[in-house]
Amino acid sequence: MATGLPEPEPLLTLVEALRCLPGVGVRSARRMAYHLLQRDPEGALRLGAALNQAVTDLRHCERCNSFSQEPICSTCRNPDRDASLLCVVETPADQNMIEASHGYRGLYYVLQGRLAPLEGVGPDQVHFGQLMERASDGQVREVILATNFTAEGETTAYYLADMLRARGLNVTRLARGVPSGSELEYVDAGTIAWALMERRST
Amino acid sequence: MATGLPEPEPLLTLVEALRCLPGVGVRSARRMAYHLLQRDPEGALRLGAALNQAVTDLRHCERCNSFSQEPICSTCRNPDRDASLLCVVETPADQNMIEASHGYRGLYYVLQGRLAPLEGVGPDQVHFGQLMERASDGQVREVILATNFTAEGETTAYYLADMLRARGLNVTRLARGVPSGSELEYVDAGTIAWALMERRST
Repeated sequence: MATGLPEPEPLLTLVEALRCLPGVGVRSARRMAYHLLQRDPEGALRLGAALNQAVTDLRHCERCNSFSQEPICSTCRNPDRDASLLCVVETPADQNMIEASHGYRGLYYVLQGRLAPLEGVGPDQVHFGQLMERASDGQVREVILATNFTAEGETTAYYLADMLRARGLNVTRLARGVPSGSELEYVDAGTIAWALMERRST
Repeated sequence: MATGLPEPEPLLTLVEALRCLPGVGVRSARRMAYHLLQRDPEGALRLGAALNQAVTDLRHCERCNSFSQEPICSTCRNPDRDASLLCVVETPADQNMIEASHGYRGLYYVLQGRLAPLEGVGPDQVHFGQLMERASDGQVREVILATNFTAEGETTAYYLADMLRARGLNVTRLARGVPSGSELEYVDAGTIAWALMERRST
């Protein structure tokens, strides 16, 4: 922003620092800074402390690659989980959604990313080696690919399926079809085409 | 988000803390937290430090109510500024825009808010008393109301104009009209109506 106004240094530093948040440009960063300073300085201090603590205390679980305070997270240490099933997701948010479905009792692997050739994210950037090692522990019988049904997620799934099958693993993908509770009239044609192709006897 | 997954405490605390940012809900907060932890932990630490420093070091300038490290900000201390002119704006961002126009050499008063009856923000919440005191310092000859041309900004301007005139001050408002560089075909009818009403001889 072109300005001749001498702004205090801590304000400029804060605006610049807020831009590390995804999707936040100069204008949003300024709005956030003014809001915090004017309306919620306590929230700002709490956020500062939370950022420090999270970066200091959290690491990646050595088994599932999700965030954890311990070397192995509590989910991976849970003996009630079925160690023969490994569900691969892009992010911890996806992992949460699958968990919230209460339809899965196996273990997880969180990629923390996906292949996105158009953005220059290739296999070297996503580090699939750790997943291959994890899936080859001798206990895993089936790897369920639960990457998103976007172009990037599908590309990632195809790529991983090849690598995992080459290691003799049974690879599956989440079913594609009409969303639960939806009316056909409002479902897109591509989804209906998939649902027809993958129809099953009842 | 309904979830049975035991998430690490520092992650939950960070997500909750990020919600103090304006316009950030649970889902955005999670996306931000994952992004920072996975892609930019250094940015997160920098942001944490910047938040602490800004809240600790910044205060409101006693004269203009903008953010400052000193009791009186450098703009208010600048002897080259015309102390007979006082421009009232809603936010420091608006102040910056006026400064960037290079068309003003007077002083400012930053409301840090505006009247918004529909949101329950009345004169008691915006604290106009400090402005009245500031405008009555004996040096100010003209108060330029530069609140936004929104319903809230206009309400604030009307209200302030009454209070300031009652104190014998000369009160003006930024001119309304066709934006510089714009084609009439693409200007809204309300703006053209104002521009006609407030036309001036050349």
